[in-house]
Amino acid sequence: MTWRNVPVVVTGGMGFIGSNLVLHLAGLGARVTVIDRMLAQYGANPFNLSGAPGNVQLIEADIGAESAIADSVGGAAVIFNLAGQTSHMDSMLQPLEDLRLNQEANLRFLELVRRTNPQARLIYSSTRQFYGPPRYLPVDEAHPIASPDINGIHKYAAESYHLLYARVYGLRATALRLTNVFGPRMRIRDAKQTFLGVWIRHVIENGRFEVWGGTQKRDFTYIADLISALLAAAEQDGTIGQAYNVGGCPPVTLLDLAKTMVRVAGNGGYDVREFPAERKKIDIGDYVANDSAFRKAAGWKPKTDLADGLAETIAFYRQHAAHYI
Amino acid sequence: MTWRNVPVVVTGGMGFIGSNLVLHLAGLGARVTVIDRMLAQYGANPFNLSGAPGNVQLIEADIGAESAIADSVGGAAVIFNLAGQTSHMDSMLQPLEDLRLNQEANLRFLELVRRTNPQARLIYSSTRQFYGPPRYLPVDEAHPIASPDINGIHKYAAESYHLLYARVYGLRATALRLTNVFGPRMRIRDAKQTFLGVWIRHVIENGRFEVWGGTQKRDFTYIADLISALLAAAEQDGTIGQAYNVGGCPPVTLLDLAKTMVRVAGNGGYDVREFPAERKKIDIGDYVANDSAFRKAAGWKPKTDLADGLAETIAFYRQHAAHYI
Repeated sequence: MTWRNVPVVVTGGMGFIGSNLVLHLAGLGARVTVIDRMLAQYGANPFNLSGAPGNVQLIEADIGAESAIADSVGGAAVIFNLAGQTSHMDSMLQPLEDLRLNQEANLRFLELVRRTNPQARLIYSSTRQFYGPPRYLPVDEAHPIASPDINGIHKYAAESYHLLYARVYGLRATALRLTNVFGPRMRIRDAKQTFLGVWIRHVIENGRFEVWGGTQKRDFTYIADLISALLAAAEQDGTIGQAYNVGGCPPVTLLDLAKTMVRVAGNGGYDVREFPAERKKIDIGDYVANDSAFRKAAGWKPKTDLADGLAETIAFYRQHAAHYI
Repeated sequence: MTWRNVPVVVTGGMGFIGSNLVLHLAGLGARVTVIDRMLAQYGANPFNLSGAPGNVQLIEADIGAESAIADSVGGAAVIFNLAGQTSHMDSMLQPLEDLRLNQEANLRFLELVRRTNPQARLIYSSTRQFYGPPRYLPVDEAHPIASPDINGIHKYAAESYHLLYARVYGLRATALRLTNVFGPRMRIRDAKQTFLGVWIRHVIENGRFEVWGGTQKRDFTYIADLISALLAAAEQDGTIGQAYNVGGCPPVTLLDLAKTMVRVAGNGGYDVREFPAERKKIDIGDYVANDSAFRKAAGWKPKTDLADGLAETIAFYRQHAAHYI
């Protein structure tokens, strides 16, 4: 599939994953419209798209704001629906706000797509969060659902909307259940988006970060591999109507991740701490994705070595720290 | 457990299941407060509680209307949270309204319970709807979730809230996943609440009703057995934090149900029709609950024969038809 001159909508396109996707698509010659509410606390950062070429247009709006976005959504050949907030703590503290952002806005958005553009290819960024503490590893898509937080409940409902609208209304939707994605343009000011963000901040400031626990095993996806996964999902109609896990680098413990980060950075350090009780309640322990279904259906595989991905990420923030801290 | 003088809140208490529960609890001497928005289209019917004794009080309010209900909720020893709308077609036609009624209102309600009365026993009426078309029979609680409609997505999220708040905040919540409940005080004007309602209407009007398909197997719960299940759940603390299937009469095909209904009524008739395409999309086919976990945990079992339950139901509507048609 060629992306040249293809009209594409990216919701949440000012955020971490969205902006990397937008820049990649723009580079391929796509005509990209970004829909973003510009909520800085959830990762939207104008600097993320400051280098975007002229074929990128921005609509500052909520994905539930029908009138502001109807024309762009109606004219898109492909829609990447990435808008949302990912903070687990925020979802527990402000559950109604999380409901509005992560679920209700998606329902309004899908109603709009259904009415104005049911033929568009639609890719939704879901999450492994709602599996809860894994009952077995690696986790496949048949793993029971047991959300450990409000965020997971709402993301699961929003994913369910996408799959339901595919089944009942014929929308050409695919959902990808992401794990820990990292790379340039992520939020590093604090741990709202991921703990890995704030670790990077401490490393580039030559400070020390805290590793809670440390024995938890996780798989991390470098942003370039995720972008190729998003494109592969959109290009393969065989993925329509399905939700797939997307993994990435071979799993490591958080302690190994910390060691690798300090090694490739050449500075900074870490201290291992006991898991804070409040976080422990909603932590999921080890997680490793079984993403063989997606690799097969989309012909995708990750290419980035964890250390290389961390090195590129740290290099980016050393250069652009002022825009992210 | 004695229910005498126990302060109890029943949300949706003006509806089918709620009103039967209220009358039963009042008969046991409980001090019952009904919270109901009085939405006739979802089954609220003032006649349902017209014979209620003085120990039943009504608050006409949404369960999300904190200020109107805070005192009652704060003072309850037991809360039966039954409010909601059950129409699958309505949920598809007005998904945002379904989101508000079946999910958002429950989140507001749980936040209120958490703040004002975390020690209350809390029973939530969930549904088997979100299992979707069963992949095996009988369906146990580990069956995959695959909602065939918007209603199922929202009911699953609302159930998830209850279980999450039990785990994280220590709320003493239990969820019961109901199947086809029937009996006096159900909505029979149309098929919004259940097809069984409109069948009964046609039978007592000595008319004919349509059986769509007819080979689908279902288990039906007579209301008296469900009331005993709700009480048993509240009385057994071992059920806290869990979601359980609740079945009832041995499963029958819809054709057998139709035959039994016409036989016990002594009049009316039915015609077998092909399943309308629009309904087929969201129909789940056969369903039989495996409720052995609940029977064990709560010491409950159903006692009513299907024909006896239908006879009692038809007798009720013959006497009170004017209030329900």
